[in-house]
Amino acid sequence: MLELNIVTHKKYEGINITSEVVKFIAESNVKNGICYLLVPHTTAGITINEGADPKVLEDIVGAVDSIIPTRYEFKHWGGNSPSHLKSSLFGTTLTILVRDRKPVLGEWQAIIFLEFDGPRKRKAIIELLPVILKH
Amino acid sequence: MLELNIVTHKKYEGINITSEVVKFIAESNVKNGICYLLVPHTTAGITINEGADPKVLEDIVGAVDSIIPTRYEFKHWGGNSPSHLKSSLFGTTLTILVRDRKPVLGEWQAIIFLEFDGPRKRKAIIELLPVILKH
Amino acid sequence: MLELNIVTHKKYEGINITSEVVKFIAESNVKNGICYLLVPHTTAGITINEGADPKVLEDIVGAVDSIIPTRYEFKHWGGNSPSHLKSSLFGTTLTILVRDRKPVLGEWQAIIFLEFDGPRKRKAIIELLPVILKH
Repeated sequence: MLELNIVTHKKYEGINITSEVVKFIAESNVKNGICYLLVPHTTAGITINEGADPKVLEDIVGAVDSIIPTRYEFKHWGGNSPSHLKSSLFGTTLTILVRDRKPVLGEWQAIIFLEFDGPRKRKAIIELLPVILKH
Repeated sequence: MLELNIVTHKKYEGINITSEVVKFIAESNVKNGICYLLVPHTTAGITINEGADPKVLEDIVGAVDSIIPTRYEFKHWGGNSPSHLKSSLFGTTLTILVRDRKPVLGEWQAIIFLEFDGPRKRKAIIELLPVILKH
Repeated sequence: MLELNIVTHKKYEGINITSEVVKFIAESNVKNGICYLLVPHTTAGITINEGADPKVLEDIVGAVDSIIPTRYEFKHWGGNSPSHLKSSLFGTTLTILVRDRKPVLGEWQAIIFLEFDGPRKRKAIIELLPVILKH
């Protein structure tokens, strides 16, 4: 199990962590199976989206923020309920197939850590689960 | 496989089911693997978020409801299309890592059943999948 | 591993692919385990929702489009940032339990491919992972 340290620099930010995941899988003994990712936070998330143009990630975290109502009367004392909501809308877990020591993703897909309450020191937990194939 | 019965009391509600999941895992023979959860409904969901302050859950289901357009001309006869949309935005499945008979979650994370069309009698299906580890 | 070809006919569309998934599982050698689905695109998604009334799917893709801000100043050159955002809100992966060569789903649940930037030729990758059960 890898605990990946992630330092975020903005309040809202999408950070491409694909290369770290690819490296972790390549250096493991797991040829085929599942790569499981957990963001152990309640105001951050994880998703798959385009990694080529970083502006896509800026658009995603920016546009979703423009949707979340600021006039809604949030009850949670922390003042960060919109960040909690975003975390649950995008999700904090990801399951990715591993074939021949590589993650199975589309040509344009990348694994993105989503910060909704930064800047902060964050973590992503990455685990590889070998699965016996008998097709 | 466990079919957990959940009784909801409001139209929109987040219910912390972490202790039930922890108990199911602790009493099983699966030390390491995956805990899979399915909410077998199309107007409810499941997510991971903060369990400490119940107001976070009220904020999540309340704020998302204030986002869903009421002026959009929904076509589905049931009148509950906004509930279907919320179900798909949050998701109805969850995969959680199990290590030493415990779910792997962040310090503040809890497993939350999301009701979007209550009050009702609901279910959550919980299954444990042992995975052979050979790291 | 199955690469399912999907042809979409509208800009926004929900397509029920449950029967294809059921067929793939039924014809496999995997009796119990996990069925994993990946939509290898960054402007499409996959979800579980009602399959009985197709109007539910029209409502989902239509209503979410009415939420996404059109006045937000998107920076990505492609002009399809709202489609990227939708892809991440709904997600591009799905994990479904398999028992006795059938997917475990609720009575009203179906597996839905979500098009957010069509019409196009799309794909869904479907894989079966047998899991040794030792309860």
